Amino acid sequence: MRSLTAWVPAGCPDIRPGADLASTVLEVCRSNALELARGDVLVLAQKVVSKAEGAVVHLAEIIAGPRAEQLAVEAEKDPRLCQVILDESARILRVRPGLIIAEHRLGFICANAGVDFSNVGLGSEWVCVLPKDPDGSAVRIRRAIAQAVGADVAVIINDTHGRPWREGAVGVAIGVAGLEPIYSYIGREDLYGYVLHSSIESVADELAATASLLQGQAAEGTPLVVIRGARFLPGAGRTKLLREPDKDMFR
Amino acid sequence: MRSLTAWVPAGCPDIRPGADLASTVLEVCRSNALELARGDVLVLAQKVVSKAEGAVVHLAEIIAGPRAEQLAVEAEKDPRLCQVILDESARILRVRPGLIIAEHRLGFICANAGVDFSNVGLGSEWVCVLPKDPDGSAVRIRRAIAQAVGADVAVIINDTHGRPWREGAVGVAIGVAGLEPIYSYIGREDLYGYVLHSSIESVADELAATASLLQGQAAEGTPLVVIRGARFLPGAGRTKLLREPDKDMFR
Repeated sequence: MRSLTAWVPAGCPDIRPGADLASTVLEVCRSNALELARGDVLVLAQKVVSKAEGAVVHLAEIIAGPRAEQLAVEAEKDPRLCQVILDESARILRVRPGLIIAEHRLGFICANAGVDFSNVGLGSEWVCVLPKDPDGSAVRIRRAIAQAVGADVAVIINDTHGRPWREGAVGVAIGVAGLEPIYSYIGREDLYGYVLHSSIESVADELAATASLLQGQAAEGTPLVVIRGARFLPGAGRTKLLREPDKDMFR
Repeated sequence: MRSLTAWVPAGCPDIRPGADLASTVLEVCRSNALELARGDVLVLAQKVVSKAEGAVVHLAEIIAGPRAEQLAVEAEKDPRLCQVILDESARILRVRPGLIIAEHRLGFICANAGVDFSNVGLGSEWVCVLPKDPDGSAVRIRRAIAQAVGADVAVIINDTHGRPWREGAVGVAIGVAGLEPIYSYIGREDLYGYVLHSSIESVADELAATASLLQGQAAEGTPLVVIRGARFLPGAGRTKLLREPDKDMFR
């Protein structure tokens, strides 16, 4: 009977700017007697990757410009926060009181362009932004783990994003290394020989969602999940998960 | 170390209209020595629920009306298929050659209003539609399992839906019983005491996505997944997963 198991090793330390994330992952796995193996998918919450890389901003050092002041009025948010959101965004898609939906400069569409107060832990005026290059972060962590313990693991950096049409955020992949994010069934036959012509599946996002079930978003302190038993092809790259704006009918 | 395991029991028989799905699930679990337990989440692919309930349509018996004929030209699809899609829809949101995005009368927004040729197995002109009342289907299967083996399992009926902005379909819940689909972190504190004020997570969709990783969409014949180790609250209902149109900024 095929199965998939996801573990959330306990005892992950507080991650501070400058932390060596790959070493931390290996230490936490070791202390949980979890030996990483070929084919495992290591999923890391965006927040710890951002923090380790120093992708944090102190609002006290931000001066809001006129666009941010205007956005702050529309969204009923701190103008300095709005300045950071603008700095992170390619464009702002929708604004309502309490809510800004932005296209991040890396292509993700999400609330506040991923700028977030929760689980930062540096003081009340600090916010976290997305890693500068989450695919690059995933590649580096993957490489460091391979070098340290010889295990060929895939790495996904996940975040939780809201969605149009459906309530509740779900885990999505924002950085991918060692795993083809999309699996295409096109050209394959179904159970009865019908040739599939449109089925493609976002394996990376489904793995990110699986990890998100275990990570929680409050004081769990469990940013690290290891998934074993998933089927995937070699590959990489968040951009494969992002629909081109001209093919998007709902932007 | 906390973990979550998803099993995909082998040997699920071909499901035909009229099949007793709860009995089939129990037989398949038994033959895989998988004993259902309290807290397990049973995830069933929409296709087998629809087929068991006879939610299938023979296109040879459909006569396309003028709206369907027009939609068929715009979408470059069979007019009779377009008639079935219209019959299933509350409204059509977008049309392009090869693609119809519709709001299903149950509120789901998806390609072709969920009408699908794959894995039907009744002949080339048969299509499958969504179950009439997927929450009701989930409740009935849950109740039948509780009566047969005394196990209090949650039941999710899942489908794979495309999404705006991101490539690839992902598993989503279209029917839910015994599980609160949304988990709210609002009012809880993060690791550092910051009170979360906007985090809600679609646990049901994340469980549906986890199952989808194992189900596949081609000739795997694995519509049934059992997930153990997930945390959820009691509850039910697909409607909690559907954003009200007037709160939706991207419809």
